[in-house]
Amino acid sequence: MIDQPNKIEVCFTPALFHLYKDESSIVVIVDILRATSAICTAFDRGAKKIIPVASIEEAGKYKEKGYLLAAERDGVVLDFADFGNSPKNFTPERVKGKSIVYSTTNGTQAIQMAIGCYKVVIGAYLNHKILTEWLVKQERDITILCAGWKDRFSLEDTIFTGALTTSLIKTGNFVTNCDSALASMDLWNVAKDDLIGYIQKASHRERLKKLVLDDIIEYCHTFDISCSLPVLENGYLINLKE
Amino acid sequence: MIDQPNKIEVCFTPALFHLYKDESSIVVIVDILRATSAICTAFDRGAKKIIPVASIEEAGKYKEKGYLLAAERDGVVLDFADFGNSPKNFTPERVKGKSIVYSTTNGTQAIQMAIGCYKVVIGAYLNHKILTEWLVKQERDITILCAGWKDRFSLEDTIFTGALTTSLIKTGNFVTNCDSALASMDLWNVAKDDLIGYIQKASHRERLKKLVLDDIIEYCHTFDISCSLPVLENGYLINLKE
Repeated sequence: MIDQPNKIEVCFTPALFHLYKDESSIVVIVDILRATSAICTAFDRGAKKIIPVASIEEAGKYKEKGYLLAAERDGVVLDFADFGNSPKNFTPERVKGKSIVYSTTNGTQAIQMAIGCYKVVIGAYLNHKILTEWLVKQERDITILCAGWKDRFSLEDTIFTGALTTSLIKTGNFVTNCDSALASMDLWNVAKDDLIGYIQKASHRERLKKLVLDDIIEYCHTFDISCSLPVLENGYLINLKE
Repeated sequence: MIDQPNKIEVCFTPALFHLYKDESSIVVIVDILRATSAICTAFDRGAKKIIPVASIEEAGKYKEKGYLLAAERDGVVLDFADFGNSPKNFTPERVKGKSIVYSTTNGTQAIQMAIGCYKVVIGAYLNHKILTEWLVKQERDITILCAGWKDRFSLEDTIFTGALTTSLIKTGNFVTNCDSALASMDLWNVAKDDLIGYIQKASHRERLKKLVLDDIIEYCHTFDISCSLPVLENGYLINLKE
């Protein structure tokens, strides 16, 4: 336990971020299904740089310039994109050494929104351990920003946030008095013994099910198989651990 | 079980209500500490009408016209008000037969926001049973709007929302596929065996504690001691069950 533990705040959706934003904090972006899981995977497969863009228009402009483009809306690949948002798309053949322009329904908007804060880092089950260790070393207050679903609260992002908050507090370096953080930890405690079963309850999964994308649910809920630590620098995501 | 169960949606804060608002639904307003608990109490004590006003300016204008005014901001009574937001203020001597103008930090804004929806009703532990029975009879979709704390998520409103949602679903007349509703039910399940102990975790209570208002926490978490069903009609709250 250190003398002055840092604080954790949790923001359940981008629509509330103005209430939680603190420019001196590190912001952890969470979009488990699928943006932040896919970003970790892309770096694991050797991507050099990821350029998050919020709008379809901006994504289109990059594509015209010859960039590799991963883009979806509502789980459907945009017709002018090279591929969509599933972690499975980010194969070494496609992404190794490449700069990828990336635009999704929820995740990339959340990343854009956090620009200007002390640091912006990508969080997922895949890089949970490496992320926790790095956050402890920073000795900074943290805001965890759930990407949600079209500005609504989403269970899958909240459950991961509870897992991360619990791990951080267990180190003794962090405290929280934030109602959203307390709720997320309790929900993680409810979900953790049957994580996939619990996530099957989430309405977001119903949406994904319609798109026959269920096969990535389990992958996106696997702890610590990624060694990537994607951090925003000058508007691009780079991998601090490459 | 009826053939076509109605749907429940849960909105965690007024800042998200534009995403959940459905004018054909009944909106249940929840502000456990303390507006919706106080409103039930006021009607129990014989109040005739409650006029919810969102702004301090509007409250002041009513006061000038000679209305009885209950008003607070951040738990502190406004200096030109007759009394504040604690249920204890609403004694029969003060409120019997009276029209009361009412303005609080969170609750009255939430009520104002729901104007235009099919019906707007006040929910609290105090009137949980009578409210549940009435909602079942309406055969309508429901949106539960938590007043929160200054547009942030609040645990105490969410826990009650989970209790109400659980009761409604148990009747067989309602279903939900809303992530916020599912989360609130799980949190209620965590909290219910030691409700007061659980609420002591909530950061809102820390704020209330500073104001030495703790003595109303237990009262506001007591089931079914009110026989009031406050409903909005023409901009005023009246008691459907008087």
